[in-house]
Amino acid sequence: MTEVKEIKEVVAYHANNVCPDDLPWIPYFGDAKFKLLKANPVTGQNITLLWVPANMQLPAHFHPGTVIVYTVQGSWRYLEDPWVSKPGDMVYEPAGSKHTPQAVGDEDVITFNIVEGTLDYIGENGEILARDNWETFLKKYHDYCAAEGIEPIDVTKF
Amino acid sequence: MTEVKEIKEVVAYHANNVCPDDLPWIPYFGDAKFKLLKANPVTGQNITLLWVPANMQLPAHFHPGTVIVYTVQGSWRYLEDPWVSKPGDMVYEPAGSKHTPQAVGDEDVITFNIVEGTLDYIGENGEILARDNWETFLKKYHDYCAAEGIEPIDVTKF
Amino acid sequence: MTEVKEIKEVVAYHANNVCPDDLPWIPYFGDAKFKLLKANPVTGQNITLLWVPANMQLPAHFHPGTVIVYTVQGSWRYLEDPWVSKPGDMVYEPAGSKHTPQAVGDEDVITFNIVEGTLDYIGENGEILARDNWETFLKKYHDYCAAEGIEPIDVTKF
Amino acid sequence: MTEVKEIKEVVAYHANNVCPDDLPWIPYFGDAKFKLLKANPVTGQNITLLWVPANMQLPAHFHPGTVIVYTVQGSWRYLEDPWVSKPGDMVYEPAGSKHTPQAVGDEDVITFNIVEGTLDYIGENGEILARDNWETFLKKYHDYCAAEGIEPIDVTKF
Repeated sequence: MTEVKEIKEVVAYHANNVCPDDLPWIPYFGDAKFKLLKANPVTGQNITLLWVPANMQLPAHFHPGTVIVYTVQGSWRYLEDPWVSKPGDMVYEPAGSKHTPQAVGDEDVITFNIVEGTLDYIGENGEILARDNWETFLKKYHDYCAAEGIEPIDVTKF
Repeated sequence: MTEVKEIKEVVAYHANNVCPDDLPWIPYFGDAKFKLLKANPVTGQNITLLWVPANMQLPAHFHPGTVIVYTVQGSWRYLEDPWVSKPGDMVYEPAGSKHTPQAVGDEDVITFNIVEGTLDYIGENGEILARDNWETFLKKYHDYCAAEGIEPIDVTKF
Repeated sequence: MTEVKEIKEVVAYHANNVCPDDLPWIPYFGDAKFKLLKANPVTGQNITLLWVPANMQLPAHFHPGTVIVYTVQGSWRYLEDPWVSKPGDMVYEPAGSKHTPQAVGDEDVITFNIVEGTLDYIGENGEILARDNWETFLKKYHDYCAAEGIEPIDVTKF
Repeated sequence: MTEVKEIKEVVAYHANNVCPDDLPWIPYFGDAKFKLLKANPVTGQNITLLWVPANMQLPAHFHPGTVIVYTVQGSWRYLEDPWVSKPGDMVYEPAGSKHTPQAVGDEDVITFNIVEGTLDYIGENGEILARDNWETFLKKYHDYCAAEGIEPIDVTKF
């Protein structure tokens, strides 16, 4: 009979606190930038802060999964929708939504975003121009850290 | 051959903005109170704002699913963990975590919470004293609206 | 004070049984066909049966979210991976996986599939040739029902 | 400037095939037994095969999250629901469902189950008698392997 020496200990993971001050802003589109707070390589969930300069419009995009956005600072809208999201508001995006974000008002916009899956930037004929997901955000974070000589935090750890 | 008259139209839902000012604070434990922003009766996901008075300690609880907390105001901790969460921080709680929240510092605490499943309040011997989920939060919201003569918003709509 | 007349009753949904015999096989790629068992327009989850003729190879595809496959009949593999999946086996696909399915052996393949998000068919240069999600599967189901004079079941109901 | 030596490589995980023949049946309630195919300590998702002897009734239980069941062999029902699930059928259970499973007919029942969160066995007054989740299933698997001298597979690996 085989003797089993090492049975992996079974212990639920603890809650952990992520302080965005420990993470750099990473250049994104134009003057927009993001911080990657957490990336889950199993489910594809990625959690970010996004900084969008006042009045900037981002490219139209499509989400295969759900997105939850908490507006931290500034006001923004989707060109396709009637509402404006203000600080303290939450935007819930069911799977398969498409839209074009625009910062409105004089203040730069900061949002806290929980995205399940990819963010597909789409052209005028629906073609996919670019896509971001947990993996590309993580690569951008690591590339930025390498270029700047910053020791990256393992944001895939739970 | 049967003629099919009504085929349900297939259109992805639009993103919608939830403004917490449109929702009442609902009494919870002691002087703590919550706002229910969204409840998903299929997945059990519930999204809330929680207000906890300065220095208040909430009962220990267990989460069968994941929890994501964004700290909006004030500072708080779990008695079981080494960190203090401050405004702008995010706490990620893997499934199966147990802990006892405590507001620290002089300011009342407000958190934005995304909970998958229930929140089970547990006693000293691990017994479940009470549980909250999308359904009980929704009932508390509806009961409060009925008592106060407020027309509730359908927070289960996507 | 406003009197509130109708507060939506709060009752958890019951489990429901889906019998695939009640659903038609819908033509897909070549002689492959599928049955749509459930589609969730909020999360994007879609649950299908897929029938692939013996020895058929499907186009390479990418999944932004997770996929769980239970092999009901026949054997199949991904060209990119070392295993062959046999009846009773389960394949777990973390988010962001890419691969090319191939039926192996003399038997037609039937799989039970739970997909979170889209299924993006990709070309040789990584370009997206076509994509399926809860919405396109539902449209194909409804279009097929309309063409065949079948009354569709509401597979988006929970 | 700090030199960054090791940036974790960013590569999406591959799909993997789990063959239940590689996993033991683990005693559960009475003569019921289970195989643990996959357990996700971050999301709490657990994937199992359950074997229930003909005519056996399992205790009533509650699920805080969703459950998807594919019936592999035999017929079964919930005492609370009007349907009987047969081989090839799928049962979808929205979050917060409660029910009492019963094997019907002369054949032992085998189901393939995807559970998000816990499975809480509840008494006549709604009290929780016992609970299972990814962690307790994993512990039972490891304990059984230790007792039987079997080398456990790491079912938490993706």
